[in-house]
Amino acid sequence: MADNTSIEVLIQALRRLPGVGVKSASRMAFHLLQHDRPGALALSHALKVAADSVRHCERCHTFTQDAVCAVCLDDRRDASKLCVVETPADQSAIERTGAYKGLYFVLMGKLNPLDGIGPKDIGLKKLFDRACDGLVQEVILATNFTAEGEATAHVISEGLKARGLQLTRLARGVPVGSELEYVDLGTIAHALVDRR
Amino acid sequence: MADNTSIEVLIQALRRLPGVGVKSASRMAFHLLQHDRPGALALSHALKVAADSVRHCERCHTFTQDAVCAVCLDDRRDASKLCVVETPADQSAIERTGAYKGLYFVLMGKLNPLDGIGPKDIGLKKLFDRACDGLVQEVILATNFTAEGEATAHVISEGLKARGLQLTRLARGVPVGSELEYVDLGTIAHALVDRR
Repeated sequence: MADNTSIEVLIQALRRLPGVGVKSASRMAFHLLQHDRPGALALSHALKVAADSVRHCERCHTFTQDAVCAVCLDDRRDASKLCVVETPADQSAIERTGAYKGLYFVLMGKLNPLDGIGPKDIGLKKLFDRACDGLVQEVILATNFTAEGEATAHVISEGLKARGLQLTRLARGVPVGSELEYVDLGTIAHALVDRR
Repeated sequence: MADNTSIEVLIQALRRLPGVGVKSASRMAFHLLQHDRPGALALSHALKVAADSVRHCERCHTFTQDAVCAVCLDDRRDASKLCVVETPADQSAIERTGAYKGLYFVLMGKLNPLDGIGPKDIGLKKLFDRACDGLVQEVILATNFTAEGEATAHVISEGLKARGLQLTRLARGVPVGSELEYVDLGTIAHALVDRR
């Protein structure tokens, strides 16, 4: 199949998706060509539209097609609360819970000195300005509970401590529906300390 | 993120890929938008080109951009051997071994009465005509060793039996590098029967 350059190009392009190796990419390419050409064209179009139109919200940095995203524009949301998350996917997870009605700031990353990602790359200055706009009273640090996420939360809390804002962190504890036997010990220890 | 229709559309489009659920699709979409917009545009282009240009080889039915594929056009290949496979992916796997220098016929499927896929849908008439072109002396049945693959091989061998062609099937046996303890019993039984 040496002549099938357009198939080869497609397989290589599919490999740029995260978690897709050469076998999955081949399977995807053959599936689309054999069973779902409308799907291939729909995906092609969606990729182009999204890559061309999606940009960052001026206020919270999340992905949006407009200058300011719908969440930031929604005046029914509680502007006194600002939830700091690493990615739009994390924001989306919190939104899906329906348990939070405040606003967001999306870092679009996390501090990672080893990869050369510093405070500037995740817009910490902009976050500090935003947090001190006079409306925000509580900053909820919802970065991930990983080494980088914890470090990011620490740097943000250090930066905001002096400004008279309430700083909170997502609760650590035993996940809903899990059995203690299978939960890691660090999580159980946190759940014991934070018991109520 | 209710306004992000182009992201939502992209996530839905990515879900049409085989083996991709809503979480993987979100991760892919956010990854492309955040870290690899050139990759998104390259994939968009590759999908469009492939969906528009890839068709079936007139002689062997595999995917190609031309009327006849490079393998069928290559006169160094042994036209006395015809290997019947289910999909271009299977053909590609055999090609990668470098152990086969004959030609192919790609069924683009397998007989599956439950899904309404009959002899017409996998081009058996065309295969029979091709096998009787006077050049082919051996037909190698390389359909998968699944129920449908075996049934397809059986139907093909029944159809070709009367035409004086040599019919062979890929050897069944213990995979290279595997330990007997972990090989299924049917495979071991076949390997015993076909011992040499």
